[in-house]
Amino acid sequence: MSAKQRLRVALIGQGSMGRAHSNAFHQVNHFFDTPYDLDLALICGRNPENLQRMAARWGWRETATDWRAVMDRLDIDIVNIALPNYLHSEVALAAAGAGKIVLCEKPLATSVDDARRMAQAVRGKPNMVWFNYRRVPSVAFTRRLIDQNRIGAPFHYRGFYCQEWGNDPSRPPSWKTDPAQAGSGVLGDILSHAVDLALYLNGPIAEVSAMQHTFAANRQVDDATLVLVRFANGSVGTLEATRFATGFKNRNAFELHGARGAVRFNLEDMNRLEFADATDDRELQGFRNLLVNDNRFWKPGHIVGYEHTFIAALGEFLEALHAGLRFRPDFDDALQVEQVLAAVQHSSNSKAWKAVQLK
Amino acid sequence: MSAKQRLRVALIGQGSMGRAHSNAFHQVNHFFDTPYDLDLALICGRNPENLQRMAARWGWRETATDWRAVMDRLDIDIVNIALPNYLHSEVALAAAGAGKIVLCEKPLATSVDDARRMAQAVRGKPNMVWFNYRRVPSVAFTRRLIDQNRIGAPFHYRGFYCQEWGNDPSRPPSWKTDPAQAGSGVLGDILSHAVDLALYLNGPIAEVSAMQHTFAANRQVDDATLVLVRFANGSVGTLEATRFATGFKNRNAFELHGARGAVRFNLEDMNRLEFADATDDRELQGFRNLLVNDNRFWKPGHIVGYEHTFIAALGEFLEALHAGLRFRPDFDDALQVEQVLAAVQHSSNSKAWKAVQLK
Amino acid sequence: MSAKQRLRVALIGQGSMGRAHSNAFHQVNHFFDTPYDLDLALICGRNPENLQRMAARWGWRETATDWRAVMDRLDIDIVNIALPNYLHSEVALAAAGAGKIVLCEKPLATSVDDARRMAQAVRGKPNMVWFNYRRVPSVAFTRRLIDQNRIGAPFHYRGFYCQEWGNDPSRPPSWKTDPAQAGSGVLGDILSHAVDLALYLNGPIAEVSAMQHTFAANRQVDDATLVLVRFANGSVGTLEATRFATGFKNRNAFELHGARGAVRFNLEDMNRLEFADATDDRELQGFRNLLVNDNRFWKPGHIVGYEHTFIAALGEFLEALHAGLRFRPDFDDALQVEQVLAAVQHSSNSKAWKAVQLK
Amino acid sequence: MSAKQRLRVALIGQGSMGRAHSNAFHQVNHFFDTPYDLDLALICGRNPENLQRMAARWGWRETATDWRAVMDRLDIDIVNIALPNYLHSEVALAAAGAGKIVLCEKPLATSVDDARRMAQAVRGKPNMVWFNYRRVPSVAFTRRLIDQNRIGAPFHYRGFYCQEWGNDPSRPPSWKTDPAQAGSGVLGDILSHAVDLALYLNGPIAEVSAMQHTFAANRQVDDATLVLVRFANGSVGTLEATRFATGFKNRNAFELHGARGAVRFNLEDMNRLEFADATDDRELQGFRNLLVNDNRFWKPGHIVGYEHTFIAALGEFLEALHAGLRFRPDFDDALQVEQVLAAVQHSSNSKAWKAVQLK
Repeated sequence: MSAKQRLRVALIGQGSMGRAHSNAFHQVNHFFDTPYDLDLALICGRNPENLQRMAARWGWRETATDWRAVMDRLDIDIVNIALPNYLHSEVALAAAGAGKIVLCEKPLATSVDDARRMAQAVRGKPNMVWFNYRRVPSVAFTRRLIDQNRIGAPFHYRGFYCQEWGNDPSRPPSWKTDPAQAGSGVLGDILSHAVDLALYLNGPIAEVSAMQHTFAANRQVDDATLVLVRFANGSVGTLEATRFATGFKNRNAFELHGARGAVRFNLEDMNRLEFADATDDRELQGFRNLLVNDNRFWKPGHIVGYEHTFIAALGEFLEALHAGLRFRPDFDDALQVEQVLAAVQHSSNSKAWKAVQLK
Repeated sequence: MSAKQRLRVALIGQGSMGRAHSNAFHQVNHFFDTPYDLDLALICGRNPENLQRMAARWGWRETATDWRAVMDRLDIDIVNIALPNYLHSEVALAAAGAGKIVLCEKPLATSVDDARRMAQAVRGKPNMVWFNYRRVPSVAFTRRLIDQNRIGAPFHYRGFYCQEWGNDPSRPPSWKTDPAQAGSGVLGDILSHAVDLALYLNGPIAEVSAMQHTFAANRQVDDATLVLVRFANGSVGTLEATRFATGFKNRNAFELHGARGAVRFNLEDMNRLEFADATDDRELQGFRNLLVNDNRFWKPGHIVGYEHTFIAALGEFLEALHAGLRFRPDFDDALQVEQVLAAVQHSSNSKAWKAVQLK
Repeated sequence: MSAKQRLRVALIGQGSMGRAHSNAFHQVNHFFDTPYDLDLALICGRNPENLQRMAARWGWRETATDWRAVMDRLDIDIVNIALPNYLHSEVALAAAGAGKIVLCEKPLATSVDDARRMAQAVRGKPNMVWFNYRRVPSVAFTRRLIDQNRIGAPFHYRGFYCQEWGNDPSRPPSWKTDPAQAGSGVLGDILSHAVDLALYLNGPIAEVSAMQHTFAANRQVDDATLVLVRFANGSVGTLEATRFATGFKNRNAFELHGARGAVRFNLEDMNRLEFADATDDRELQGFRNLLVNDNRFWKPGHIVGYEHTFIAALGEFLEALHAGLRFRPDFDDALQVEQVLAAVQHSSNSKAWKAVQLK
Repeated sequence: MSAKQRLRVALIGQGSMGRAHSNAFHQVNHFFDTPYDLDLALICGRNPENLQRMAARWGWRETATDWRAVMDRLDIDIVNIALPNYLHSEVALAAAGAGKIVLCEKPLATSVDDARRMAQAVRGKPNMVWFNYRRVPSVAFTRRLIDQNRIGAPFHYRGFYCQEWGNDPSRPPSWKTDPAQAGSGVLGDILSHAVDLALYLNGPIAEVSAMQHTFAANRQVDDATLVLVRFANGSVGTLEATRFATGFKNRNAFELHGARGAVRFNLEDMNRLEFADATDDRELQGFRNLLVNDNRFWKPGHIVGYEHTFIAALGEFLEALHAGLRFRPDFDDALQVEQVLAAVQHSSNSKAWKAVQLK
C-alpha cells in the first residue's frame, strides 16, 4: 500500500452529489485495484455548518469556502466539481487552467459555448464527467451485447427518464427549479442522462423535433421535454424526460430494438436487464429477465445500488489514468450531450426540426 | 327466445377480422342479454374456396361474391365490413345508402375526405367501428378510473403499439404492406388504435409533430411512425407505432400520468392494469397490478382473451341499438382518428408541427 | 358439413362449470376440424327456472330434471357431468352402464373407491375428465419443453393454487364449503388441479406429508392443505392449496427446476410462461417471459382466456375419439389424482408420511 | 468527531463475509450518526497471503493468525466472528469469556447445545448475529406494516430461499459443502435465513414436518430442505431452501397473507416489496409494486444493495449499544433459529412431525 501514488482530492460542493462522490472516493479502493492512494484533502462550500458536518462524516481533512483559492494550491491534484450547473464552467476552467485533473458533475454546462470551452481546456488531459449511469452493470452489459452483435442493426431506441417530484407541493424549493442556477429543468437534469445513454448505446443523433412544457404554476423551467429522434445509424426513436410522471420515483429507462435482439432497462430495477434474442427458436423468444452482476463488487445474486455507479466510474477512471488511456465519458462526450440538448431546446423554441451541430 | 327480434347480418370479408367478427356474432348472446336474435345470413368474398370454408365453419347460411348485390337485398339488416382498408368507403357508403346498419373495421378509411363522407352517411343512424380495444376490461376500467377522478388532471400520455413482424422475411406478403390496399403502414393499421385509445382516454389532440420511417427494402408503407402530441386538455405525450419492435408480438400499450394517479397497460397482458394512486400514504404508493375482470364473461380470476373485446363491443352496440342510444366508437369517433392520422401524415411529410383539423 | 357424424350431448348440471362446458360445445368446431356435429340435445338440472335460462342462452334443445331418465334415452351419445362432486360417481356409473361416452368434471369422486369403480366402468371406452388446465397453452408447452429435454433431470417441483375468497364473509354459501356435497375443501377443489398438473408434468408421486387447516369459524372443510412431496423420479417439492391467500384471485401456479432449465407459470397470467435455459451462456441465463400461443385459436400475440382451456380439451378429446386413441386426462388419470389426494388426507389425519397407493 | 468513543474491532475470518463486514465497519459512520469511532484494529486468519491482502484493502491495522491470542488482548473491544460455522461456538465463548462485545455470523452454531451455551454466555451483554436480511428496507418495512395491522391476522406464510449453484460442477469445492465445517447444507446456510425471517415476521413456530434431499453425488450435506410449518399464531405455511433451483441466483423470498393484506418479497429484487391491501375497494385490490426506501442511505428512487443490509444492521447495533437497549437479532434470537433447525433436522430424520423445543 505504501507504494501507491497519492492523489489529493478537493471536492467543490457539499450537496447530495458531493455525498455520492465522497462515498466513491472512500470506497473505490475497496473494490478496485488502483495504484492510487486517494487523499480526501479538502471540501469546499459556502454553508459552513453543513461543510463541517460533511467533512466530519466523510473524512475530508480540511474545509474551505473560497473555491478560487483552492485552485492555487499545489497540494491538490484532483478538482471534483459537484456544484449547481451554472458554476461548472467557471470552476472547471479555473481548475484546468491550474493544471488539475478535473472531474465534473453533469450536465457539463448550461450552454454549448461553455461546454466547448471546458472540453477544449481539458482535452488531452485526464478528465471525466459523472454520467454515472453508464456504469450501471446492466447498462455496461448492454453495451457489450451491442458490441457482440447480439442486438444487430438498430431500429428503434426509446429513452425516458421519469420522476414524479415536480408535482409535489410539499417539496422544499431547490436550485434545480431555479433557471439561473440550473439553466433548465428536466432538460439538463435528467434528459441529459437519457441523451448520454442514447449516444453511448446507439451513437450520434442526427436531428430532433422537440417540445417542452411547464406544468407547475410560476415555474420557469421545463417540467417535461419530449423529443423525436433520428439517429445517424438510421434508427428512429423518442427521448422523454418529465418530473410529472406520477408513480415513478426515478425511472431512467431505455429500450433498444434491433434486427437480432432487444433490451429493456429501467433504473428503479437497475440490477435487471431484459434481453430478447431474436435468433432463438421462435417459440423460445421472449424477454429474459437477467440479474446482471458486476463481480468487482459482490458475488452473483448479491445486488448493488445507486452508489456503485459512482464507485465503478471512479474506479475505471483511475484505471484509465494509470494506463494513460482516455476515460469515457469525458468532457468531449458531455459536450456532445450539450449539443443535442441545444438542438432540443432550439427545436422546442422554434417548433421545427433541428439538426444536431457537431463542431 | 322466440320474442327476440331477428337481425340478419351480412359479413363482407373473409379474412382474420371476418373470423373475429364471426365469433362475436356467435358468442354475443351467450354473454349479453340482448333482445336480438342474430342471423348469420350471408358471407361475401372473392375467394370461393375460402368462402365455403368460412361459411361451413362459422355457420354463415349463404355465400356471395358480389358485395354490391348484397346491398340491394331486403333480407339483410346489418352490413359488417371486414375488408382491406381501401374498400371500406365504397362498401360503407353503399350500405348506408341502402339503409343498412353499418359496422366497419378500422381504420375507417384511407383519407379524411372518405371518412367524412362515411360519417355523414351514417350520422344519426346506428353504426359502429371496430376499435375493439376500448372493450378490453382494463381499458374500460381505465376510463372509469378517469371518470371517478382517480387519475386527476392529466400530465403525460404515452401510447405505443409495438409489433415485430415487419422484420420477418419469412412472412408471406399481405395487403397490409400494399399501399394501394392499406393506404399506409403502421399509421392506419396500429397507430390508429393508439390514437383511438388516446382520444378515448385523454381527449382531443391539438397538434402533432411526427416522423415516419420504412426499414424494409422495397416497402412503400411506413414501418414506424412516431409522434409528439399536445392534447387539448394541456397534457403532453408521445404516440409510437412500429412493426420493428423486436421482442414484442402485439404490445398495444399506454401510460397516463395525472395529478392524482397513473395507469399503465399493455395488450399482451390485457387482463392486467397497473394503477398508482398518488393520494395513498406516500410509502404505500406504487403501481398496483390489478387483475381486471369483466363479470359479463367469467368469474373473477378467470381471464378473457382477444376475442372478448369484439364480443363486448358487439354486445354493447346491441344494447345501445335497443336503447336508442349512440354507440361509441362510431363513425364520427373514427373520423376524428382519421383527422389525427392525417395531421400525423402531414407533419411527417412537411417536417413541421401540424394542428389537428376538426370540422 | 352434412357428412359430419352427429353426437348428441346431455349436460347434467347447470352451474358455472355447465356454463363453461356449454361454451366449449358451441365453440369447439369453430377452432377444431373435428368430424363431429355436436348436438346440444339436453340439459338436466333441478332448478327449473335457471334450467330454462341456461337452455335459452346456450341453445340446449331440451330440458330435463331427472338425470336417471336421461341415461335410458337412446338419442343421447355423450353424458357430460358438471355436478357437485358427491354426485359424480352415481351419474357416471349409470352413464357408463348405459353405454354413453362419459365426460366428467373434476375431482372425479369423493373417495378412491368411487373413483376406482368409475375408472373401471369406462376403461377402454372414450372418456375424459375436465382437468382443463392441462390445455392452457403455456402448460401444454411446458410438457413439450420437458419432452424435448429442455428442463432435464427434475430437482424441485412447486405447485401452489392460491385463492382468497375463503375469507370473504360477503360471499354467499356454496356447495363448495359443504362437506356433504364437496367431500372436502381445497383438497378436491383446487389441490386436485395442482396434483393433476404435478402428475402431468413431473410424473408419479411416491409419498407425501401433509397438513390441513380450516380458518373460517364453523366451516367443516379444509381452507388450506399443504403437502411435502417425494416424486418417483427422485425430485422433491411442495404442493399447496389455499382459499386464504389474500391478494390472489385464482393463482394456480407451478415451478419446475431441472438440470437443464426451469419453468414458472401462474394461471392469472396464463398466456405467459417463464422459462430459464441453463444451457445458455451463463450471463444470458434468466427467466424468459414467453407469450405462448395456441395457433388453433388466434394469431400470435392475440391472447386466449379461461374458456379456451375447455375448448381445447374438448377439441383434442374429439380428435382422439375419431382416431380411436386414448385421451388424457381420463378417468384413470383422475383416479391417480384421487389416490394422491387420499394419501394427502391420510397423512394430514395421521400426521405421518404416507406412500401413495397405486392399485 | 474527537468526542467519539473508540471501539476497537477484531475481525476473526477473512472470507466473503469478512469482506462484507469490513465494508460495514467502514461505511457505518457515513450513514449513521453513531457516537463511536470504529477502529479496524485487527484481522485474524490462517491464510497469511490472503490476510495481508484483506488488511491492505480494507485497512485492518494489524494481522494475526492465532485467534486465541486475540481474546487476551485488552486493546480489543469487539470480536466479530466471520468463520465457518463449526468454529463459531469456540471463538464466541472465548470472546464472551474475555468480556468482549461479540458479533457473530449466522448460523450461530452447528448444534442447539452450542447455541444455548453461546446465548447464555452473552446474555445481558451487547451482542448481535448477522442475520442481515432483517435490515433489507423492504423487510423492515414489512415488519412495520405488520405492526400497523395492515396485514391483519396471519393465514399463510411461505419462505423459500432458492439458489442454483449446487448443481454447478465447475464451482470449486467450499467449506459450505463439507459437513465437518458447515454442520449441514442448506439447513444452516440459507434455511436459517428463511427461519429467521419467518420468526421475525410471523412469530414462533410450533411444529414442523420436514424432508431433506441431496442431489449431488458424493455430497454429504442437504441440497434441499423442505418444511411444513404450524406457527404459534395459528397460521400455516412452508419453508423451503434449495441449491438446486435452476434459474435463481439468490432468491430469498417470502409471502405472508393475512386477513387485511399480504406481502411478497424476494431478495433478487430487494428494493421492491409487493403489498396488497384487502381493505381497499375490491376492484382496486392488487399487489402494489413498492420501491421501498431507506432514507438513511440515498434519496427515494436511488436504490441500495446487498452490502447495505450489513451497514444498517451494524448501525442499529451501535445505536442500541449507545442507548443501552437490546439489539435484535441477538444470540437469543439465533438460538431460536437453531431450535427450529434442530426440529427440522429431527423431523427429516424421523419422518415425523416435531414440536419446536423452546427452553
